Amino acid sequence: MKVAILGATGETGTSIVNGLLGSKEPRYEVTALIRKSSLKNPQVLALQAKGVKVVEADLSAPEDALETPPCAASLLTQIPLVNAAKAAGVKRFLPCCFAPVMPPEGVLQLRDTKEHVINHIKKVRLPYTIVDVGFWYQLMLPRLSSGRIDYALPVTLGGIAGDGNTPCAFTDLQDVGRWIARIIADTRTLNKMVFAYNSVLTMNQVYDMSEEASGERIDRNYISAVEIKTGVDKSEASTPSPNSFNYFEVVKYQYFNSMGLRGDNTPEYARYLGYLEATELYPGMKVTTPKAFCQEVLSGKAVTIYQRLASAAQ
Amino acid sequence: MKVAILGATGETGTSIVNGLLGSKEPRYEVTALIRKSSLKNPQVLALQAKGVKVVEADLSAPEDALETPPCAASLLTQIPLVNAAKAAGVKRFLPCCFAPVMPPEGVLQLRDTKEHVINHIKKVRLPYTIVDVGFWYQLMLPRLSSGRIDYALPVTLGGIAGDGNTPCAFTDLQDVGRWIARIIADTRTLNKMVFAYNSVLTMNQVYDMSEEASGERIDRNYISAVEIKTGVDKSEASTPSPNSFNYFEVVKYQYFNSMGLRGDNTPEYARYLGYLEATELYPGMKVTTPKAFCQEVLSGKAVTIYQRLASAAQ
Repeated sequence: MKVAILGATGETGTSIVNGLLGSKEPRYEVTALIRKSSLKNPQVLALQAKGVKVVEADLSAPEDALETPPCAASLLTQIPLVNAAKAAGVKRFLPCCFAPVMPPEGVLQLRDTKEHVINHIKKVRLPYTIVDVGFWYQLMLPRLSSGRIDYALPVTLGGIAGDGNTPCAFTDLQDVGRWIARIIADTRTLNKMVFAYNSVLTMNQVYDMSEEASGERIDRNYISAVEIKTGVDKSEASTPSPNSFNYFEVVKYQYFNSMGLRGDNTPEYARYLGYLEATELYPGMKVTTPKAFCQEVLSGKAVTIYQRLASAAQ
Repeated sequence: MKVAILGATGETGTSIVNGLLGSKEPRYEVTALIRKSSLKNPQVLALQAKGVKVVEADLSAPEDALETPPCAASLLTQIPLVNAAKAAGVKRFLPCCFAPVMPPEGVLQLRDTKEHVINHIKKVRLPYTIVDVGFWYQLMLPRLSSGRIDYALPVTLGGIAGDGNTPCAFTDLQDVGRWIARIIADTRTLNKMVFAYNSVLTMNQVYDMSEEASGERIDRNYISAVEIKTGVDKSEASTPSPNSFNYFEVVKYQYFNSMGLRGDNTPEYARYLGYLEATELYPGMKVTTPKAFCQEVLSGKAVTIYQRLASAAQ
């Protein structure tokens, strides 16, 4: 089965490449669509070494997207890709989703933009699957005062929304590709939304788990609904480029609101919105538990994310 | 089962009231939400005479909707209604849809606005059902040169989009309420989209049928894709108030494009978009066939629509 990936060197893209290359049934032939200026990047050469075919593809945002914020523009580069996929008879298109479940409009600006891409897919009748994965384990854990897991936490939420008792679905970024390898070979998921998460925890449970596994006491910085509302208002007034840590500092209040206060990122809300659940579709799938991930991070052997962002920030 | 209806004296509202009052299982208790200034209107008094409870309700569009076109503003009055329904614990909300199937965005401005209402419903997690019904029989037939069915055709498409061979789903407006009486009592349709149509025909088949039933030859005014595109561009530049026949003259090109060229209003596209099909859910439902409707119109006994618009135009 042939799969072409845009963003194959990104965090989700890397997981997907690994998941597809590791699949025995079906076997995937993976092609990375890479812009000309990046063809010689070490990450791209590494993809080729793994057996990924590299094809030059320069996508630019549609002209009317040029005045939108950089983040939206970047998502809207999918529009010409959708058109090209339709013309080429692509059998299934997975738009950039791979995120926490939330309403299609009015809670996270990034999600609103994704909805326009999804609507365009539906307009041109391209076969599709929407996959959301919850919040990454890799962004879940709080720092420890010893500093010993900082290596694995380039970005943290830096606090607990509300009272910390709202359930939230989490997934190991490393498992995303393994879910995808199953989902895209499955006729049941065609033209459907799928929620592929590993586990549901409240933030208090995450902190309890971290304290127990590390033996360290962790301060709990509860962020009030009022503070979150102020942060959301500020982020809606101006959002920085998504290619910076500053972006996350600003939009994190939209996530706090969605995941911590509204409780959007749950299997229940996903079902209401019409998602199928990967845990039900693939009951035999073995995934990393939150506890195992926590141990992995404490052992010092966790795969770190956002390394390029981190080195760019130095 | 208690049902409250906004727009109970409109064309779809009237059909729904009749469908619910005519239902034996379940029995419905029907309440019409009527604005204060209309409480003494003959249509409202007629509702009461039928056994409909009338309750005063004045909805106004949210403030930020005041600058949108009248049609959009009218649809957006549903936003405060959705919020009120959520607060009141309403078990199921049917937003104003009841239209041909088409993409959620980018083909018909009216549909784009409906999508914002649907997104708001999802944001507040109100249980819902979206029902679309195809194109009405009542707008389907061409005029005859004898003029004998003009009484039943206050509005016609006035032409055939493209080559007239695109399939299109049609429903008798009188059957809409009977479909609704089944759909809203059915747990399978909760938080789902349902396509409730009677029959699928091409416009050439509609003309063939009309000629055969009437014995009159009917000119076929085929409207080219280029002409439709020009009409769509014009309608997107400025759309008149929906409370006038002129509105339909302008937006009909958007319908020509969607139904006649793109072929959106079909069971196949509805399935792709995720709709359930009423014909499959209720195989025992008896509905008026296009042929029977055609005969009814020719007999001079068809219920006429848009009477108030027609008398306002005189």
